[in-house]
Amino acid sequence: MIHPTAIVSPSARIDASVTIGAFSIVHDEVEIGAGSKIGAYCEIGYPGPQGADRPLVIGRGANIRSHSVFYAGSTFGNRLVTGHRVTVRENTEAGENLQIGTLSDIQGTCRIGNFVRMHSNVFIGQHATIEDFVWIFPHVVLTNDPHPPSEVMRGVTLRRFVAVAAMSVILPGVEVGEGALVGAHSSVRHDVEPNVVVAGSPAAMICRTEEIKLKDGSGRPAYPWRRHFWRGYPPEAVSQWKSEFDEE
Amino acid sequence: MIHPTAIVSPSARIDASVTIGAFSIVHDEVEIGAGSKIGAYCEIGYPGPQGADRPLVIGRGANIRSHSVFYAGSTFGNRLVTGHRVTVRENTEAGENLQIGTLSDIQGTCRIGNFVRMHSNVFIGQHATIEDFVWIFPHVVLTNDPHPPSEVMRGVTLRRFVAVAAMSVILPGVEVGEGALVGAHSSVRHDVEPNVVVAGSPAAMICRTEEIKLKDGSGRPAYPWRRHFWRGYPPEAVSQWKSEFDEE
Amino acid sequence: MIHPTAIVSPSARIDASVTIGAFSIVHDEVEIGAGSKIGAYCEIGYPGPQGADRPLVIGRGANIRSHSVFYAGSTFGNRLVTGHRVTVRENTEAGENLQIGTLSDIQGTCRIGNFVRMHSNVFIGQHATIEDFVWIFPHVVLTNDPHPPSEVMRGVTLRRFVAVAAMSVILPGVEVGEGALVGAHSSVRHDVEPNVVVAGSPAAMICRTEEIKLKDGSGRPAYPWRRHFWRGYPPEAVSQWKSEFDEE
Repeated sequence: MIHPTAIVSPSARIDASVTIGAFSIVHDEVEIGAGSKIGAYCEIGYPGPQGADRPLVIGRGANIRSHSVFYAGSTFGNRLVTGHRVTVRENTEAGENLQIGTLSDIQGTCRIGNFVRMHSNVFIGQHATIEDFVWIFPHVVLTNDPHPPSEVMRGVTLRRFVAVAAMSVILPGVEVGEGALVGAHSSVRHDVEPNVVVAGSPAAMICRTEEIKLKDGSGRPAYPWRRHFWRGYPPEAVSQWKSEFDEE
Repeated sequence: MIHPTAIVSPSARIDASVTIGAFSIVHDEVEIGAGSKIGAYCEIGYPGPQGADRPLVIGRGANIRSHSVFYAGSTFGNRLVTGHRVTVRENTEAGENLQIGTLSDIQGTCRIGNFVRMHSNVFIGQHATIEDFVWIFPHVVLTNDPHPPSEVMRGVTLRRFVAVAAMSVILPGVEVGEGALVGAHSSVRHDVEPNVVVAGSPAAMICRTEEIKLKDGSGRPAYPWRRHFWRGYPPEAVSQWKSEFDEE
Repeated sequence: MIHPTAIVSPSARIDASVTIGAFSIVHDEVEIGAGSKIGAYCEIGYPGPQGADRPLVIGRGANIRSHSVFYAGSTFGNRLVTGHRVTVRENTEAGENLQIGTLSDIQGTCRIGNFVRMHSNVFIGQHATIEDFVWIFPHVVLTNDPHPPSEVMRGVTLRRFVAVAAMSVILPGVEVGEGALVGAHSSVRHDVEPNVVVAGSPAAMICRTEEIKLKDGSGRPAYPWRRHFWRGYPPEAVSQWKSEFDEE
């Protein structure tokens, strides 16, 4: 399952069922779980300045697509899926079922929950906290320095079920409350209450999320999105979400 | 013409005049026309989830630069040119002379005309329609989900001769009319009339395009740009454009 | 020090102490100084259309990370450091200690001073002038065409000690004065005075930089940043900066 052109350290701990693509490199301190697949031209376990003494741990069933770079010193739960040319630096701790889109760049030293989905070209600055079921859309940037450059780091916090739409930037230290929606091309400078929509540059509150209706002719509310969007989530989560809203 | 380190499927249909760079991979269901050139570290015909049963067809005279990934299931006319690290997913149908800049990411299921030019790091969401002679500048995002995440997809439409300047985002379902200009760093939420300039976040109408003068000291109008910008277009198009405006 | 899978032209002038990573390509007209390190999957000295007749010169002590592409026809001083998947085109002249972040794309024909630091995914349009000690943060775009597309090119100028925060765009021909700060997600359409803060879309003046206080509880001013931020700068610069402000 290891392509003959791949360069894999004999000290890497790779399950026998793992596939390693052509021209990929796996360094010493790497652990990859059963059924995982690494695409072509990937460099896995790159010994960066801050994590070279600790392993990179990737759970079972991962699918890391081509040209991606993972540094040593981070940990990922099962079923990690990435696009192409993803970069993840040191000291990231991520839960299960993380999706990282093409070109996304996770700078490390952050905490990521379960079932988080990042689309293409997302930038996650250091010290971010991203809770379960968060969505981050293309070209979003999470910052961390309130007066750059400085040694003061204030990570962004995205609570459960938050969605940040395309090309928005979240300023240092901002907390976006559970279920909130950040509209596209917004600049979020202040904390956001749960279950509200903010948009604009600078972002202002627009309405409560429940006021947005699905544009499918049904008249149903578009948020909380777990009322209607279930693709790729486990049956137990979906059935819990269905019962949560059937009861309302 | 195939570098000895390249891995090319014997079932790929590649003209004898095609050049394949070092360390590149060409999968089974790929057809590449005469005179085309594939750079190093490219993966061509990647079997993705939505197009693996259909071929990738690349016309004659293509120049695909290094580290690019093209999925199976799309079709490109002659003279495709790309920068480095381009990604194109399934179900894209593109005309002739398409240019795709470095890092640009075409998500697939879109229709692209002839002589379309995308600069660096453009993101084209699914279901976009991009007509002939459109220009898209660096870091532009075309979205498609009016209330993300959802199953409702509303692609963006850019009519002929539209120019979208750097770091603008076009919101789902928006149609930008023929010859319009979207200023840099704009967020376009509503349809745009032909031949007007919109700018800002949210974008508002600024003026008609003909009111913008070329900053070359000539006093000539800067739009329609085909009055003065001819680099890389075929002589027959340029002579038609010249006669179109000489007659005014 | 050259990995056996690397493809290095015998006419490249590479110091014996240089390390070349796996699967990398070094073309003919390349000069790399002592102690430099090239990562995996890099293409160095790519013969592009505008610089193929001139060499690529990289000074001593460079660290170019994986998947990067440098065209022929540019010159870099000592101690260049890059992230992954950097692109640099022709006719760039850069000083010493340049840092270029992951995914950044320098379009060439620009002048870059000493100790310039670009973070991830920065886009530098042609004809930019970037002076010493400038900081450019993630997803910033420097443009150059006042009415795209056209043949009129007006590069951006960033004077010494400027900081441009994340996801800002600087419009063509704009000059940002020494020590100024451009806030995140700004669109800068007019020249910026030295030592002021501008922010917004369109950007407006907010205050003088000296009015911003460090959020570290000290009450000290956050700008000029060289008063407190010294990581990675040479001892002689730092001791000069310390004496400069001790004297105030």
